[in-house]
Amino acid sequence: MDDTDPPVIGRRGSYAKGVARRQEILDRAIEVFAERGAYATSLRSIAQALGISHAALLHYFDSREQLLIAVYEHAEARREAAPDAPEPAGPVDVLTRAAGANVAVPGLVELYSTLVAASLEAGNVTGRSYFVGRFARVRGDLAERVRDGQARGEIRTDVDADQVAALLVAASDGLQIQWLLDPSVRLESLGTLATLLRPPAPDVTGDRSER
Amino acid sequence: MDDTDPPVIGRRGSYAKGVARRQEILDRAIEVFAERGAYATSLRSIAQALGISHAALLHYFDSREQLLIAVYEHAEARREAAPDAPEPAGPVDVLTRAAGANVAVPGLVELYSTLVAASLEAGNVTGRSYFVGRFARVRGDLAERVRDGQARGEIRTDVDADQVAALLVAASDGLQIQWLLDPSVRLESLGTLATLLRPPAPDVTGDRSER
Repeated sequence: MDDTDPPVIGRRGSYAKGVARRQEILDRAIEVFAERGAYATSLRSIAQALGISHAALLHYFDSREQLLIAVYEHAEARREAAPDAPEPAGPVDVLTRAAGANVAVPGLVELYSTLVAASLEAGNVTGRSYFVGRFARVRGDLAERVRDGQARGEIRTDVDADQVAALLVAASDGLQIQWLLDPSVRLESLGTLATLLRPPAPDVTGDRSER
Repeated sequence: MDDTDPPVIGRRGSYAKGVARRQEILDRAIEVFAERGAYATSLRSIAQALGISHAALLHYFDSREQLLIAVYEHAEARREAAPDAPEPAGPVDVLTRAAGANVAVPGLVELYSTLVAASLEAGNVTGRSYFVGRFARVRGDLAERVRDGQARGEIRTDVDADQVAALLVAASDGLQIQWLLDPSVRLESLGTLATLLRPPAPDVTGDRSER
């Protein structure tokens, strides 16, 4: 054993162990939320369900809000890592697939909705800045896809891409909730947006007469 | 004083007083939520803010969930009773007006979103049944308006009225949240839905050639 190495290895080892432990907590926490509901889930009760001390949990997460957001991001990343998922190109396809995957993870939509609602609270700086950033990013990505679709003639051009993007995010978030409460509401309603966004069939006769 | 009357008057009097007290609590509670956030607001802290005992509050509301729903319905009813509001006919107009009025009441959208999120919790029977019923009612009303619009030729007929109604509710709920987090998202995005739902301009030339 070399005198200069062990501390480094030790630090690395404990860092890696810390990361692994953090992942373990996140893996299990989404189940705890699904079982107990996000509202009723305090840091203390999560610690209890995970069989660790409240102090140990606070070692990994500064606050309940921070843990909840980490759990949400972790569950979402796991969902996105699902195999056999070629990237869909159209904005409505992207959302429809994500919505279907979300509702399949027990507790995920509830956790997301709880965090979004909490982000509206005066004083919830962590939550607010997280969701302001997240919504802007998701809308930006969708607006890009809408503009691409418009340029390719697949999406009508008489609507503003940014406003359509905001609408799409809202519709997807809201339909997941309605579906979870009442499965007679079909997530396929999102597909209605694809129909609405399709450009009008070209007036072939008119086109020809002008040539 | 007549022996047969006082108990009745007494009961009536105390009933009326009870109703008035309940209204007072609801009037004040929405402000408490706006100040403190729905998540952090326990029955006990509402009682404290209202200057009544926890036991007195429990006399009017069996549970936190029941109080929250009553506060939401009360605030919504007050909002709807606003003067100078001729009933708009089109489904998008109805939603746009309601969305604008909602975001103007501090705490209302947050309370609604918190209750909706909580209704997804396993075991939240009160919340779940309230929102299953509420969403079904709102969707039903909007679907009716969509069908009317379709019959009058104001809304395109290649989309299903029930699915459009679910979309509209989702879009309105979600846009209110996005707007509260980031005012660069305009509630007018809902108006984009009106554009999307408009039937294609009639092909006048084609019509004439057939006559």
